[in-house]
Amino acid sequence: MDTRDKPYVMGLDLGGTNSVFGIVDAAGSIVAETSVKTCGHGPEPETYVRDCVEALRPIIDQVGGVAQIRGLGIGAPNGNYYSGCIEYAPNLPWGKERIPLARMFSEALGIPVAMTNDANAAAMGEMAYGAAKGMKNFIMITLGTGVGSGIVCDGKLVYGSDGLAGELGHVIVEPRNGRLCGCGRKGCLEAYCSATGVARTAKEILSTTDTPTLLRETPLDEIESKHVSLAAARGDEVARSIMEFTGRMLGLACANFVCFNSPEAIIFFGGLTKAGDLLMKPVRQSFEEHILRCYEGKTRLLVSRLDDAKAAVLGASALAWDFVPSVCLSPSQTLPQGRA
Amino acid sequence: MDTRDKPYVMGLDLGGTNSVFGIVDAAGSIVAETSVKTCGHGPEPETYVRDCVEALRPIIDQVGGVAQIRGLGIGAPNGNYYSGCIEYAPNLPWGKERIPLARMFSEALGIPVAMTNDANAAAMGEMAYGAAKGMKNFIMITLGTGVGSGIVCDGKLVYGSDGLAGELGHVIVEPRNGRLCGCGRKGCLEAYCSATGVARTAKEILSTTDTPTLLRETPLDEIESKHVSLAAARGDEVARSIMEFTGRMLGLACANFVCFNSPEAIIFFGGLTKAGDLLMKPVRQSFEEHILRCYEGKTRLLVSRLDDAKAAVLGASALAWDFVPSVCLSPSQTLPQGRA
Repeated sequence: MDTRDKPYVMGLDLGGTNSVFGIVDAAGSIVAETSVKTCGHGPEPETYVRDCVEALRPIIDQVGGVAQIRGLGIGAPNGNYYSGCIEYAPNLPWGKERIPLARMFSEALGIPVAMTNDANAAAMGEMAYGAAKGMKNFIMITLGTGVGSGIVCDGKLVYGSDGLAGELGHVIVEPRNGRLCGCGRKGCLEAYCSATGVARTAKEILSTTDTPTLLRETPLDEIESKHVSLAAARGDEVARSIMEFTGRMLGLACANFVCFNSPEAIIFFGGLTKAGDLLMKPVRQSFEEHILRCYEGKTRLLVSRLDDAKAAVLGASALAWDFVPSVCLSPSQTLPQGRA
Repeated sequence: MDTRDKPYVMGLDLGGTNSVFGIVDAAGSIVAETSVKTCGHGPEPETYVRDCVEALRPIIDQVGGVAQIRGLGIGAPNGNYYSGCIEYAPNLPWGKERIPLARMFSEALGIPVAMTNDANAAAMGEMAYGAAKGMKNFIMITLGTGVGSGIVCDGKLVYGSDGLAGELGHVIVEPRNGRLCGCGRKGCLEAYCSATGVARTAKEILSTTDTPTLLRETPLDEIESKHVSLAAARGDEVARSIMEFTGRMLGLACANFVCFNSPEAIIFFGGLTKAGDLLMKPVRQSFEEHILRCYEGKTRLLVSRLDDAKAAVLGASALAWDFVPSVCLSPSQTLPQGRA
């Protein structure tokens, strides 16, 4: 990694509420940071980009100007690497449009810009600064409101034919009578092993049994996954069985994922991993029970150690290390565009 | 593909019974062919290699000598691309040993040699000469005695951390009360959607119901998948329901596979595909029902059109196009060795 010319990259974690920017060095330290609200800039994405660039000026100056920055990486829901567009993200202010945000930022900032979805960005972050440093084959699983994934084969993120590869949260793991998933289909991994899925499991058990449990201290419709992991940590049997159910399902799914790219590791990130061994022990047990013999003992199951608050920005920034600093790119040229 | 220096590649389809060699041109025509029995050369693999090279001399002379041949590709059960070894293949004469067959052939022939398993070789064959010509992202599914697979991402076969990636036949599709699979686990795709799986489904139905069916003309323990597809073709309802069951299961599994690498196509090869629409119609229906919305209409389900008798040799040979003809390789140097 030649960082002599341009020692920094910039990352944008574009979320439904906040757009967080960070300027990052090769060691993975965020040297400057700023953020703007994602909403409130009117219906035009141009205004959003203009306001962001305005907010960025002080932190860009702080590192010695834009010439010090190799490029910007954007991690965004439904961000497509090939097109550099956000494609129909329901929770972003531009709704159903296809927004060429990579090109817009590149033109406004005069540096190359790459974009991908949040889970892929998380995988890039682990590879550049985290648990996957030095790995060529691994799978990133993000366990948040949904279940996201980023797959790395031979050192490169798998984008597939359309830039949308790696949706392991929507692998159907329950072929019969599966739960309705947010995607409209039934039985997806995400319907069980996300934070939302854990809360659903809890609500199902609480409303169909009368077993005493600490979980009944919270009104049924307010139950979240954190209530389950807190109760489990206090030894509550029902809560523990919910974590066990979730972990076993995730472990089996991961054993299946290994059949694809025989990864060195599967790395978990996100709110659910805070449950620690309450989740990870059944994941490991089920994984080992279900793994195909030729893969036994080869894939490590790891929990990300990147700082939660910084991981998304770090991941997005990691995309920009791929830009070659000595090549002269015109402002509107974003490397992935050629693939669109 | 620069074929000026060395216009041919050689393929070896190493099966339990026969070892079939073919010399292939860039258009995918087998210009010369020979074969030897895989067994009967004694317990030492050295003797097998020596006898093969002996049998090869006439066909190598026929194309103008070994200087015309860029390299040899071997497709073999449990063939590992990284190590160039056959690893513990139970149906081959060298039993439980790890046989460095790529190195041995390279030393004996004086050309570079690469090896992979049969399903990966089939994928290479489709990419070089078949339905996947020009594709960068696709999945090959072989439906034979077992279910094999080869996965191509961004133009390259996925070998994973150990050379053993791509075992989609052993994805567990039936998480509860699944059938015992040859691998020792339960509920694998292979236990249902292979030729053996179809025969098992037939036997299960025949022994647990008394519905009249043409299948009862064959003694129960002699039933094979071809009996099922023949009876289905004659309109037999039970046989049709077996093909329907098999196809629907395969279609769902394929919809899940798309979540990995969003392929342009899934290409099916092997005995079961002879059933034509009797299998492929339920595959397509189930695939379309279960595909995640963002992938809808993007992945074609194709049946290989390569000649059955030639596909394995063609596939193996395709591995050798990756050898660069102008680079001077020492006889013992097989390109993948560096990865071992």
